[in-house]
Amino acid sequence: MKYTHHNNELNKNHIGKTVFLKGWAAKVRNLGGLIFIDLRDRFGITQLLIKPGNAFYEVALKVRNEFVLEAKGVVIERESKNSTISTGEIEVEVIELNILSIAENPPIIIANETDALEDTRLKYRYLDLRRPVMQNFMIKRHEITQAIRSVLVEEGFYEMETPILGKSTPEGARDYLVPSRLYPGHFYALPQSPQIYKQLFMVAGFEKYFQIARCFRDEDLRADRQPEFTQVDIEASFVDMNDVQEIVEKVLVKTFKKVLNVDVKAPFLKMTFQESMEKYGNDKPDMRYEMLIEDYTEYFKTIDLPLFYGKNQVRGIILEQGLVTRKRMDQLQELVKKNHGEALATIKYSEGQYTGSIVKYLNETELKGLYLKEGNTLFLVPGQFEQVSSALSALRIELANEFKLIPENEFKFLWVTDWPLLEYSEEEARFYAKHHPFTAPVDPEVLKNNPKDAMAKAYDVVLNGYEIGGGSIRIHNQDVQKLMFDTLGLTKKDIEERFGFFVDALKYGTPPHGGLALGLDRVVMLMTNTQNIKDVVAFPKTQSAKDTMMQAPSTVDSVQLEELEIKVGK
Amino acid sequence: MKYTHHNNELNKNHIGKTVFLKGWAAKVRNLGGLIFIDLRDRFGITQLLIKPGNAFYEVALKVRNEFVLEAKGVVIERESKNSTISTGEIEVEVIELNILSIAENPPIIIANETDALEDTRLKYRYLDLRRPVMQNFMIKRHEITQAIRSVLVEEGFYEMETPILGKSTPEGARDYLVPSRLYPGHFYALPQSPQIYKQLFMVAGFEKYFQIARCFRDEDLRADRQPEFTQVDIEASFVDMNDVQEIVEKVLVKTFKKVLNVDVKAPFLKMTFQESMEKYGNDKPDMRYEMLIEDYTEYFKTIDLPLFYGKNQVRGIILEQGLVTRKRMDQLQELVKKNHGEALATIKYSEGQYTGSIVKYLNETELKGLYLKEGNTLFLVPGQFEQVSSALSALRIELANEFKLIPENEFKFLWVTDWPLLEYSEEEARFYAKHHPFTAPVDPEVLKNNPKDAMAKAYDVVLNGYEIGGGSIRIHNQDVQKLMFDTLGLTKKDIEERFGFFVDALKYGTPPHGGLALGLDRVVMLMTNTQNIKDVVAFPKTQSAKDTMMQAPSTVDSVQLEELEIKVGK
Repeated sequence: MKYTHHNNELNKNHIGKTVFLKGWAAKVRNLGGLIFIDLRDRFGITQLLIKPGNAFYEVALKVRNEFVLEAKGVVIERESKNSTISTGEIEVEVIELNILSIAENPPIIIANETDALEDTRLKYRYLDLRRPVMQNFMIKRHEITQAIRSVLVEEGFYEMETPILGKSTPEGARDYLVPSRLYPGHFYALPQSPQIYKQLFMVAGFEKYFQIARCFRDEDLRADRQPEFTQVDIEASFVDMNDVQEIVEKVLVKTFKKVLNVDVKAPFLKMTFQESMEKYGNDKPDMRYEMLIEDYTEYFKTIDLPLFYGKNQVRGIILEQGLVTRKRMDQLQELVKKNHGEALATIKYSEGQYTGSIVKYLNETELKGLYLKEGNTLFLVPGQFEQVSSALSALRIELANEFKLIPENEFKFLWVTDWPLLEYSEEEARFYAKHHPFTAPVDPEVLKNNPKDAMAKAYDVVLNGYEIGGGSIRIHNQDVQKLMFDTLGLTKKDIEERFGFFVDALKYGTPPHGGLALGLDRVVMLMTNTQNIKDVVAFPKTQSAKDTMMQAPSTVDSVQLEELEIKVGK
Repeated sequence: MKYTHHNNELNKNHIGKTVFLKGWAAKVRNLGGLIFIDLRDRFGITQLLIKPGNAFYEVALKVRNEFVLEAKGVVIERESKNSTISTGEIEVEVIELNILSIAENPPIIIANETDALEDTRLKYRYLDLRRPVMQNFMIKRHEITQAIRSVLVEEGFYEMETPILGKSTPEGARDYLVPSRLYPGHFYALPQSPQIYKQLFMVAGFEKYFQIARCFRDEDLRADRQPEFTQVDIEASFVDMNDVQEIVEKVLVKTFKKVLNVDVKAPFLKMTFQESMEKYGNDKPDMRYEMLIEDYTEYFKTIDLPLFYGKNQVRGIILEQGLVTRKRMDQLQELVKKNHGEALATIKYSEGQYTGSIVKYLNETELKGLYLKEGNTLFLVPGQFEQVSSALSALRIELANEFKLIPENEFKFLWVTDWPLLEYSEEEARFYAKHHPFTAPVDPEVLKNNPKDAMAKAYDVVLNGYEIGGGSIRIHNQDVQKLMFDTLGLTKKDIEERFGFFVDALKYGTPPHGGLALGLDRVVMLMTNTQNIKDVVAFPKTQSAKDTMMQAPSTVDSVQLEELEIKVGK
């Protein structure tokens, strides 16, 4: 290319050199006839100077923000240095200036700080992405992707592509469907994950596979969900749980080092699902702070306290320091109830005094027996294990954020292990797979005789309170796979229609195998320290699965529907 | 992992070592009580030996082809060496043998050679892919993908993902549609290419983008087409045609060197579209052999020959050597007609004699004037330029294959340049974009005043007769883009509805930009020297867009259609 430098490169060493630059006019100033243009590209900014009398002075006068320019000039030392940019010691006195493209005033200011609404930002995504902070998210995503891939390639994994036009096997989330033109009334489905394909790669003997795979779920969206998302899909043969975890640790450790220069220690901590539920109230604990859940059931058994009458459990957390106002306490009550908690009780100890909603039911000895320290507030929730856990988990996170108990720039990884294989739905009187129906049981005999107690060879990797990956050793035995489907209540016909080919595939010499899928969007979100998954997706959909820039989904020509032999309407 | 070696690694240097291997039983022989098992993994084969009296002899007796095994043993020198495999000097005398997975007799023999029908191979794709030759296709695909990517990353391109759930803008091929559940009656479309998104990345200032992108076309399939395919999508700002071509050459040269150790010379040859049509009859000439089309129009003007009466052109090719039987000549006549040629005339010169369908119309001098050499056959087709070109192109390829004029293991790259911008459809009395509606005209004034003559800043890269990539400099000026849509007959309303946001995007400072997309599947096909695109796609669809392994497309639950508010039927 004919341009000599990016806009972050020039410094004192280049003084006197003739250079050829290009970029966008980030700022244009006219100071007593001297025209200064901040020329911006994806790398940085270089200041151009055009003096009166310059042959291109008239051109320079026309330049407005966001015009695209190319400029030839000589590097000179700046009079007033700018230490905030890498080129702050120099400027380029222009010899030639060409306007490559003009620009209207953009609806979004092209700067890191923005007060534009999300709607505007999404509609003009191509301008939102021009803001350096957003460019940096995309560039970091690129770097993270390359780092992850290079570790897997080094480790002998093959990157292989699997179809996007697949088969609908609804189990769990809703599929996106694609009507077939050649077989009217028939549909492809977009994959929720390449799970079956990657297992077939193992059947085919590839031993080590990965893919940076696009996946799709037609679910109602949350802040950290998109209808399409990207996962780093990993599978290997002849491995046990430990082998998979080691590979994933290697990937994450090297990626954090390469991209963020952060040292992460491996092996990661391990915690059982049960312990995580007990101590943190959820299965993806944020290990950056304590405030663990404690069990007070025994303690309150001997105390006459109407709120706790007949409750299975009383558990709680202690906020060590911090003022919770009456109004705030009402909000926390609401939070607890929204998260399935029956009630919230508190005891605070401060300056020798106990206060709080249930203090009056406890005598001095009983209060002292809580061993509260100066400033401590004890939050208690009574009820069943699941409900109490859910409520205290939400409360713990809320308080940690409010009282800034979460250290910044810390990355705490954790393996959550020893998962139950199944979940029982009382409502539907049937079992669901806790992970998915291809997860191997620790003991097939337990699955057969006592499915409620069956444990899974499954493991999730958690970072700072987010599940960033889920994996398992898979079933590689046809009979166990049939037993699993059977336990999930699939009829023989269901199995045959949906998974017949897969059950078939298992009988021709399937090696033991397992793997894991990392949620790339979430990993990038956490590594770039943003809260919004949309920031790390180039062209995201809104909360209601809409692309407001392109206006998709949209109506289509009736002839398109006729060709597909489908009709719109209930 | 606990295994010590792959099955291609052991040789004489390992004799005496204890090793731990795993893999599939590729062959089991029992020779006078000695059991030999060829243990296969993705790397190669190692021979296991189990003697009578071995504690695992009974286990070994159970092993059948495709059982999955692990074996501990000691490396010993083989009595009868096998020079065809890397481990042919040794074998492993087994100390411990475990069956990890049993196998039924597979419906496809797991060997490079197969007589299985394509139907069977696709239905049992997971077994077809177990054949070493198929594994090699996938592994080469992996290597090619990594090589291409690493060049682009080195060159400063960012890998960025674009949506699969996009908007339908039918222009050219048919879109695959995805009904929206949240907006009944509205549809997403799967992208035919990330064209608009990649241009928006340029608007956003990323300057250099690439993506190994999945694309979709709901078209009737040919042997080298699949409903979904992968392209290496490249775009850069502040570039001209030469810059893009240089990048692509760098990518291809380095990839061929790295993966095949083949030296390709850059810059590639260049040929105009017009010259390609004249000399080869098509726009993707195979440069590995000559047999160029010559113009005989002037020559036959003075000869009284009814077949050529009133014909615009007479052009032909010369087959230098080779016997074309009467029966074969009839088939070639058919081929010419199938490819829009009006007629095929021949003159052959052999042993001083002229023979062929039109010899009787020419006198001695006229025949000599053709300067045919011993053994030459001249094939002539009369008619309009396009029809003659099409017919002679097909004939040239057919003869080259038949008479083995195509050298093996040669890679001849070519840039086809100077394309017309538009194509006029007499039938519909409208223009179509020869590439796509975002291709920049060489001169917008010509597009405005005389669209038929407008030339494009477009270039295709051709390898061995296949178009492996198409690219262009894009329109970056709003007015030119509007003019282009206008010339294509889009109404203001069409433009607004389909491309409004894009035309809008161009007005906020769009840099000049351009790019190219390489067809990855085709590149892999050519580099692995196979004729069938299905060989290089892990899970391909049939010619009728079906996945016969998974049985997709398939019918779906009526509740799924109810949720989408669509109905099946004309």
